[in-house]
Amino acid sequence: MRMYDLIMKKRNGGIHTKEEIEYIVSGFTKGEIPDYQMSAWLMCVYYQGMTKEETVFLTTAMADSGERLDLSAIEGVKVDKHSTGGVGDKTTFIVAPILASCGVPIAKMSGRGLGHTGGTIDKLESIPGFHVSISEETFISNVNRIKLALVGQTGNLAPADKKIYALRDVTATVDSLPLIASSIMSKKLAAGADVIVLDVKCGSGAFMKEEKDAIALAKTMVEIGNMAGKRTYGIITDMNEPLGCKVGNALEVCEAIEVLRIKDVKNYLSNDENHVQKGIARLLEVSLSLATYMLIGSGKETDETKAREACMEAIESGRALDKLAEFVGAQGGDAGCIYNTDKLPKASCIVPVYAPKSGYVASCNTSEVGMVSLILGGGRETKDSIIDLSVGIDIHKHIGDYVEKGEVFAYLHANRDSVVAEASKRLVSAYTISDTPVVATPIVKQIITK
Amino acid sequence: MRMYDLIMKKRNGGIHTKEEIEYIVSGFTKGEIPDYQMSAWLMCVYYQGMTKEETVFLTTAMADSGERLDLSAIEGVKVDKHSTGGVGDKTTFIVAPILASCGVPIAKMSGRGLGHTGGTIDKLESIPGFHVSISEETFISNVNRIKLALVGQTGNLAPADKKIYALRDVTATVDSLPLIASSIMSKKLAAGADVIVLDVKCGSGAFMKEEKDAIALAKTMVEIGNMAGKRTYGIITDMNEPLGCKVGNALEVCEAIEVLRIKDVKNYLSNDENHVQKGIARLLEVSLSLATYMLIGSGKETDETKAREACMEAIESGRALDKLAEFVGAQGGDAGCIYNTDKLPKASCIVPVYAPKSGYVASCNTSEVGMVSLILGGGRETKDSIIDLSVGIDIHKHIGDYVEKGEVFAYLHANRDSVVAEASKRLVSAYTISDTPVVATPIVKQIITK
Repeated sequence: MRMYDLIMKKRNGGIHTKEEIEYIVSGFTKGEIPDYQMSAWLMCVYYQGMTKEETVFLTTAMADSGERLDLSAIEGVKVDKHSTGGVGDKTTFIVAPILASCGVPIAKMSGRGLGHTGGTIDKLESIPGFHVSISEETFISNVNRIKLALVGQTGNLAPADKKIYALRDVTATVDSLPLIASSIMSKKLAAGADVIVLDVKCGSGAFMKEEKDAIALAKTMVEIGNMAGKRTYGIITDMNEPLGCKVGNALEVCEAIEVLRIKDVKNYLSNDENHVQKGIARLLEVSLSLATYMLIGSGKETDETKAREACMEAIESGRALDKLAEFVGAQGGDAGCIYNTDKLPKASCIVPVYAPKSGYVASCNTSEVGMVSLILGGGRETKDSIIDLSVGIDIHKHIGDYVEKGEVFAYLHANRDSVVAEASKRLVSAYTISDTPVVATPIVKQIITK
Repeated sequence: MRMYDLIMKKRNGGIHTKEEIEYIVSGFTKGEIPDYQMSAWLMCVYYQGMTKEETVFLTTAMADSGERLDLSAIEGVKVDKHSTGGVGDKTTFIVAPILASCGVPIAKMSGRGLGHTGGTIDKLESIPGFHVSISEETFISNVNRIKLALVGQTGNLAPADKKIYALRDVTATVDSLPLIASSIMSKKLAAGADVIVLDVKCGSGAFMKEEKDAIALAKTMVEIGNMAGKRTYGIITDMNEPLGCKVGNALEVCEAIEVLRIKDVKNYLSNDENHVQKGIARLLEVSLSLATYMLIGSGKETDETKAREACMEAIESGRALDKLAEFVGAQGGDAGCIYNTDKLPKASCIVPVYAPKSGYVASCNTSEVGMVSLILGGGRETKDSIIDLSVGIDIHKHIGDYVEKGEVFAYLHANRDSVVAEASKRLVSAYTISDTPVVATPIVKQIITK
C-alpha cells in the first residue's frame, strides 16, 4: 500500500477499506507518512467526504492508536457525557452528581480550557483543594464507592487524533463532518464508557452555527457510537447565548450548585417572569435532558418521563448536591464550598454593565462573550496562560428579554481595573437589541437516538 | 498575510490576488511556508481551479523565483519551441535548423530524459563529441553567429516550480490544468525567448490522453504566454503512437536527418503507399506545422502558406541540413555524422519483431513503447541511470496499416541479448490489431493562436 495511491483514491471520490484507513492512521502516527501527504489526504476528505463505514474505521483506528481506558473493574453500566463545547457550559457539575446519586457509575475524563471555551477541570479547581491527580486505582475505587470520579485526559488517549487534529488546525481541514465526528468519538471510545450521551451545541457560540449542521454531526456521531457497540444519544442544544447566566470558573461552579439546590423543579422551569431565573432554567432544562438520556442509557430507567422524574427527584431531594459534595471531598476539595458558595474564590470588584438602549435582546455573539471572560483573565490565550478562577460575567438578560436603557444588563467580576473598560465595551457590542419583540428558540432542539 | 487564511480562501472557492500568489510562491520557495500547508493549498487548487489571472500570477511568480535568462544580447526575435513530451519526438532537430537557416535565432535550453520519454540532450549526445557545456558567452555568440545553440537547463531556472513540482509529484496534485500550465510556462518565461510555440501532445503516450484536455491545456498556456507579453501558439498533435518510426537516442537523430534530406516535401507527404514513409511523413507534418508558426511568430512571414513554403524550401534546398551540421560542429560534435549517419553509434544486433496476427493496426499503448526502449537500455529509470545511446526501436507499421501475420512489424536495436525477449513481447503487446479497417487520426489536430 502506498499513501500516494490512497490520496489519489480519495481525491477521485473512492471509498477506503478498513485496511487502508488503518494504514493511513497508523502510518501517520508512527511518522512513516509525512505531514504533507496527510494534509493532502485530509483536504480530499474535506471535499469528498466519507461514508459511515469509513468514518467508523477512522474513529476506531484513532481510538486504537493508544491505550483504551480499561473500566472493566467498575461495576455497572458506565455512562459518559460529552459536550461539543460552548460558553457557560457547566452541565457536567449538575448531571454527573444526578446520575451518581441514582447509582449510575460516572468515570469521567475531562480537559482544560483553551480560547473562549472553559475547561471542566479549571472550573472544578476553583474549589480549594480539589485536584485531578489521582491514581488509576483511586479513580476506579472512587467510582465503585461513590459512583463519581474525574481525572485529566492522559496524553496517550487516541494519540493519532491528537496528531491529526494538530495538522488539521493549520491546514484548514477542521470543519469536515466526518473528521470532527471521528475526532470526538475516537476519544470517547478510548475513554471506555459503555454509553455515551452527546451534547451537540449549535449557534453563535458553537462550532456548528446552523441547526442542520449540528443535527448532521450528532447523527454521524450517534451512528459511529452505535456501530462501534456503544449505545449513543445526541442532544442538540442551543448555544446562541451563554448557557445559564454565569461565565467564569468559580462562577460556573456556583451556578451549577444553584441548580442542584432547586426545590421545585417543575415550578422553576415554568416561571419565566424573572430574567435571571429564566437563564438558569435553560441550564436546568439542558441538564435534565442530558441526565434523562444518561439514565435511560444506563438501563436503570426505560421510560423517558420516569427517567426525567427520577433526575428531578435527585435534585429536589438534595441527593445530587450531597453527591457533588462527596465527590469534591473525595478528590481533596473543600466540600463545605458546595453548601456555602461564599467560600469559593471571589473577584475583588463587581462592575455593572448597563443596557445601551431600550428594546428586546435579539442576538448574542456568544464566542465574543467567551472572549470577554478571557479578557477578564478567566481563560487561556495559549496553553501556558495562567487563569484567574474568580473572574467572569453574570448575565442578567437573555434573548427575548425586554431591557430598559440604563438597566443592569450584566455584572463583570474582575480583579484588574485595566481590562474592565474593554471587557464592558465588548460585552455590550456582543449583543443586539431590537425594537420589536424577539422569541427565544427552545434550548433543547432535538434528540437523536439512532 | 497568513498561509492558513489563503488555504481557507482557495478551499472555499475564493480568487487570489497577485500579492497572495506571490506570498505563497515566495514563502514556499524560501521554506517559510511548510510542505503540509502547501500540499493542502495545492489540493484546493486541484478541486477549485484557478482563474486565468491567478494562473498568470502563479506562472510569473514562479518564473521570477530564480534568474530569468537574459537573451537581450541576441539580435532579432528569439523563438522557442516546447513539447509537452511524448515518445519518438525528435522535432527539435528538424525545426531548430529550419528556423535558424531562415535567419531566426534559436537559443534553446533543453533537458535530459527520465522514464519513458527521451531527452533532447541525450539524443544529441549520440553524435560523437557533441556537448552542451558551453559558457553563456559562447551560447550567445553562437546564436548570433549561426542562429542556433543549445544548453542544458540550469538549476536556478524557476526554482519555485521545481520545488512545487516535487511536492505535487508525491501528493497526487500533478494533474491540475492551471498547475500543469503554469509549471511549463514558468520555465518558458524564465528561458527568455520572445515567442513560444507549444507542441501539446495528446493520446496514449502523452500526459493528456484526451484531445479536449490537450486543447484546454494549450488554450491556458497560450493565454498565459500572451498575457505575460510573449506571442504564444499551441499546436495539438497526436501521440497515440510514437512520432515517426524510430525510438531511441541515435536512432531519432538519424530519423531527423532523414527528414532534413527529403527533396520533394509535398510529394513525400502525399505518398502513403509505403508504411515507413507514412510514419516519417507524420513526423515531417508535425515539424512543418511547428516551424511554420515559429516563422510566423518571428515576424519573418505573416502568411501561413508562405511560411510553410519557406520551411519546406529550407528542407528541400539542404540548407536546414547544413545548418544542423554547422550547429553540431560549433558544439564540439562530428558534423560528418550529419551527412553520413553510419558514423552514429550502432547497436550490436538488429532483431525483427513479427506481427502476431493479420489485420489492421488499431491502437498503440505509446508509453509502453517508451518502456520497451527503456528496457533495451535507451532510457533512464532513475536520475542516475546510464543510458545506451545506440539502442532503440524502428517501427515499420503504424495505426491504420494492414499487416500480415509473420510480417516484420518493427526492429529492435539491442546490445544485450538478455532483454530482447521481454522487449519483443512487450512491444507486440503494446499494439492491438483489428480485423476491420482502422483510419488513423490526423497528426496535427488543432492550432491555438489565442
